[in-house]
Amino acid sequence: MKIKAVKGGLCAVNGVRANGVREGSKGLALIAGKERGGTAVGMFTANKIKAAPVLLTARLLEKGGGRVSAIIANSGCANCFTGAEGKRKAERMAELVASSLGVPEEEVAVASTGPIGKQLDIGLIERQLGEVAEGLTSEARGSTAAAKAIMTTDTFHKEQAVSIETDAGGRVAVGGIAKGSGMIFPHLQLSGGGRGATMLAFIYTDADLSEEVLRRSLEDAVENSFNMVVVDGDMSTNDMVLLVSTGSGEAGEAEKISEAEFRAGLDFVCKELAKQIARDGEGATKFVEVRVRGASSVEDAREVARAVVRSPLVKSAIFGGRRPDLVRGRVAAAVGSCAVAGEFGEEELSVTLKSEGREIFIEVDLGAGAGAGARAGEGKRERKGEGEATAWGCDLSYDYVRINAG
Amino acid sequence: MKIKAVKGGLCAVNGVRANGVREGSKGLALIAGKERGGTAVGMFTANKIKAAPVLLTARLLEKGGGRVSAIIANSGCANCFTGAEGKRKAERMAELVASSLGVPEEEVAVASTGPIGKQLDIGLIERQLGEVAEGLTSEARGSTAAAKAIMTTDTFHKEQAVSIETDAGGRVAVGGIAKGSGMIFPHLQLSGGGRGATMLAFIYTDADLSEEVLRRSLEDAVENSFNMVVVDGDMSTNDMVLLVSTGSGEAGEAEKISEAEFRAGLDFVCKELAKQIARDGEGATKFVEVRVRGASSVEDAREVARAVVRSPLVKSAIFGGRRPDLVRGRVAAAVGSCAVAGEFGEEELSVTLKSEGREIFIEVDLGAGAGAGARAGEGKRERKGEGEATAWGCDLSYDYVRINAG
Repeated sequence: MKIKAVKGGLCAVNGVRANGVREGSKGLALIAGKERGGTAVGMFTANKIKAAPVLLTARLLEKGGGRVSAIIANSGCANCFTGAEGKRKAERMAELVASSLGVPEEEVAVASTGPIGKQLDIGLIERQLGEVAEGLTSEARGSTAAAKAIMTTDTFHKEQAVSIETDAGGRVAVGGIAKGSGMIFPHLQLSGGGRGATMLAFIYTDADLSEEVLRRSLEDAVENSFNMVVVDGDMSTNDMVLLVSTGSGEAGEAEKISEAEFRAGLDFVCKELAKQIARDGEGATKFVEVRVRGASSVEDAREVARAVVRSPLVKSAIFGGRRPDLVRGRVAAAVGSCAVAGEFGEEELSVTLKSEGREIFIEVDLGAGAGAGARAGEGKRERKGEGEATAWGCDLSYDYVRINAG
Repeated sequence: MKIKAVKGGLCAVNGVRANGVREGSKGLALIAGKERGGTAVGMFTANKIKAAPVLLTARLLEKGGGRVSAIIANSGCANCFTGAEGKRKAERMAELVASSLGVPEEEVAVASTGPIGKQLDIGLIERQLGEVAEGLTSEARGSTAAAKAIMTTDTFHKEQAVSIETDAGGRVAVGGIAKGSGMIFPHLQLSGGGRGATMLAFIYTDADLSEEVLRRSLEDAVENSFNMVVVDGDMSTNDMVLLVSTGSGEAGEAEKISEAEFRAGLDFVCKELAKQIARDGEGATKFVEVRVRGASSVEDAREVARAVVRSPLVKSAIFGGRRPDLVRGRVAAAVGSCAVAGEFGEEELSVTLKSEGREIFIEVDLGAGAGAGARAGEGKRERKGEGEATAWGCDLSYDYVRINAG
């Protein structure tokens, strides 16, 4: 197997057309399979307060047999905390797409991102949809236009695609777009359940895989990518990741990809999109990667990694370029605040910081049993647990406050 | 019973002398009972990484039969993540006080606050101690000097005292000092266990109460006061609250106070000190109070209240004076992110915001069952649960970033 990053985003996948437009803060993206709907799975915010489009799309994937013919996503309004009117407008978005593209209404996924508590301007969406549908294209610019249309406080658009050369000689593509900058603390769960942020990601593949394979591949990929990004620790009401298999790869290739090969490609795309979100966190001047090892379990390692990358004190210190020895203390406090299994004290804890330009790498080892020496990165390490995880985030700058105070 | 706020802080309590000095960022406070040690209980950070003074004082209260003759507390260095050298220096602080005041070393409580990971300048502490011990006084200025000495990024010192006129005709005092401004997310637990921040509070009373009564009174008081303050959500390695009963009230008065009367006085002091900490949060320009009701349990109400007051998005919006309808959406998202019992959606949730000058009051009702009407604060409310809680915090300003970037 060989995985190669390729251009084209969504449109690197056979059978996918996309487009997007924007008027000021209000953007509209549309994604469509070439012909009939593809097998689809989704993961949604665990926030108990869920936006109308999240409820609609989660329901669609439950009862609809998991088929998605098109995805419509608007920016500039979350359509959340908007009551019965909001629910009707989310349904109206699906209806409009269905009649425009001639696909079943129950195969249209809807997503929204933007301020919570404002009513959607459905008239604007109707007007924008005409233009967007007309310009649907399978050229790379279609994916880029869609990625740009769903941006809110994002400063750049996010796309990633890979081409997988399978051992059996097939060639399969996985490609997607994403958005996310603030309210980033996703806890995405399969169909309905979550931790949280507004981040959206729409991923397509031309591999023809069963709903079951798509579901477990997505769950694992998201757990190690989007669910490990923290910008501010605020869980959104609108987070959504959709994975659609068009199954329209070149003839016969569907059988030629193993689950492991597909997973490798999907993991790559999800991690790259997740890191793009971290890099573009609201007000970010630095990218932060936290690697944790020596934890009793992967779950514990994840909790610790997220706690470090979430800490306002660690984030402010990184923004200010504080001396590494003083940042280490704040990292240690964040690690210690986690309710993870097993006891550890400062003797067991090793924290190392490295910076390469605007990228900061923090390594935390909960199993280093050599006191001050180990803490300074010397000494022999006695690993206590095999749990490892990596989280991504950014620093906390004046601009984060400015963006969210406005 | 009548509770009256009185001046004097710690020194409003019979038998308590205090003093403090400061050289730049390095302060030293000393508190002593008039004669022999008093019955003492303490609560400590739940952070797994505990500063050397926290470990020392927690151990003292476990094995020492719960007596404290003096408290020494320094600012400017947390003495945490400092290895064996840090442990020796914390012990040395206790030794120095013991020999200076002629009290048993195992009755000296030690506390520290300041940056993590720096070694303590024990020479400076030794020099400062001479001056501080010499100036110990039972006059109000002693309490103020001690409260000022433990300040770090605090912009004002924190003291509170009450006089309780008991139904049986006694008169008992409860008085204390506190510090706290950043790294404020305390989860204080009895002797050893915690959530987190550097906040310190030292409270004395001349009521002569058993260790058992002191312990359960403190636990309940802290749960509803210090543990409900959030500045940044970073749990400190150094949080500590000590309650010492000197038992040196006027003759016979010890028996004249009921547990309920004492609790009322202690609760008042703890809540006032906690609110002072919230008001003085790093960079704060506004004070925020969040009241939650309608939750399934008090624990759930606490979790929701803390989540709202912790949210960077809610805090930035308050700093910027964002329109209440837009802040409400962010509050709703923070509420929904909590893993509390029972399901609720936007129909059940009522969020109201009021501002009075620089004080913001947020009311959240999880049991309001009247849809949009209830959300707007009209409509009839059908309460689902009886769980209620209040949390305190502040806004997130540019100054928070500036203070912690430096």
